[in-house]
Amino acid sequence: MKIAVIGATGTVGRAIAAELKARHEVFEIGATRGAHRVDLLDLASIKRLFDEIGRVDAIVAAAGHVHFGPLVKMTPEQFRLGLNDKLMGQVNLVLTARDYLNDGGSFTLTSGIVGAAPIREGASAAAVNGAIEGFVRGAAIELPRGLRINVVSPTMLEEARESFGPYFRGFEAASGARVALAYSRSVEGAETGRIYNVH
Amino acid sequence: MKIAVIGATGTVGRAIAAELKARHEVFEIGATRGAHRVDLLDLASIKRLFDEIGRVDAIVAAAGHVHFGPLVKMTPEQFRLGLNDKLMGQVNLVLTARDYLNDGGSFTLTSGIVGAAPIREGASAAAVNGAIEGFVRGAAIELPRGLRINVVSPTMLEEARESFGPYFRGFEAASGARVALAYSRSVEGAETGRIYNVH
Repeated sequence: MKIAVIGATGTVGRAIAAELKARHEVFEIGATRGAHRVDLLDLASIKRLFDEIGRVDAIVAAAGHVHFGPLVKMTPEQFRLGLNDKLMGQVNLVLTARDYLNDGGSFTLTSGIVGAAPIREGASAAAVNGAIEGFVRGAAIELPRGLRINVVSPTMLEEARESFGPYFRGFEAASGARVALAYSRSVEGAETGRIYNVH
Repeated sequence: MKIAVIGATGTVGRAIAAELKARHEVFEIGATRGAHRVDLLDLASIKRLFDEIGRVDAIVAAAGHVHFGPLVKMTPEQFRLGLNDKLMGQVNLVLTARDYLNDGGSFTLTSGIVGAAPIREGASAAAVNGAIEGFVRGAAIELPRGLRINVVSPTMLEEARESFGPYFRGFEAASGARVALAYSRSVEGAETGRIYNVH
């Protein structure tokens, strides 16, 4: 398979690329680094990327930012950051890159444990992750040509414990390699509309 | 209790007001009709409303629009409509009206069956409803002063079958009166962070 991994320079993306490269041709795509780059907030940038690398069999997205902060101080603008970035980036990708997927190809998006499990300062992240999961369930039944779409919801990564540990006291972490298995299951399996929880 | 019902001129809102008026002082608030009005997209309008009616014990929101349309034709702008309206309207309300709730007071928001159950043309609605439910789970653990927040997810209303029936073939409808019970349970009960499914 030809697989585009977007966010390939991040902690999760690197692990996904490592898992999939053993068996597939993987295009590692970064936001600001790497041979191939894309800005998911810019539809023209998404088109340019796929005009460059050509049609693929799977597109994996592990990219996007959200605002963490106390609810009682959160402004609507801060709340919107994650909607504009992590949510709309992945939605733009599906709406735009769909035509570059071969028949039967798949999208695998990324949500996260926050939402299914609430944490302090996570109200915006919870909304964004809930939106991505709702979108995937909705989109799965409408995609043409046997295209599939799933989402992976990872817990905190072991590799990210230093930055995120204080938010996730008492949560079991998962290694990048373990989280990457869920992406492989989505890409190399046959299901659609699924949320793969790694927590 | 003093209860503000926002969206009180809509099908769901009317039923909620009818259920709660028997036991409480209910302020019926519309977007463009009625004695009290509010534009949830305008923080100043939200503040004006509560400066007018004063502090309350419960705020119920049954308002907001989303775009329904085929995924393969949906533009990012169409997708954003529901995020900007139904999602951010209710988020703005919580972020802004929180200070007008008495200790132990409650918010009750509205999501919908689309998302939990996907339907054609419902990918954006599914994202919006998922976001509202994620937000409620996240916000519930951070609200101060014993404030509570829940969300009601109604199926298609019997009263709306004429307009929405074609989207929901095979779905059981619920009467407005039955849906209103879930709002009463949220307002008059003691739970927080709950999704009350009426489907």
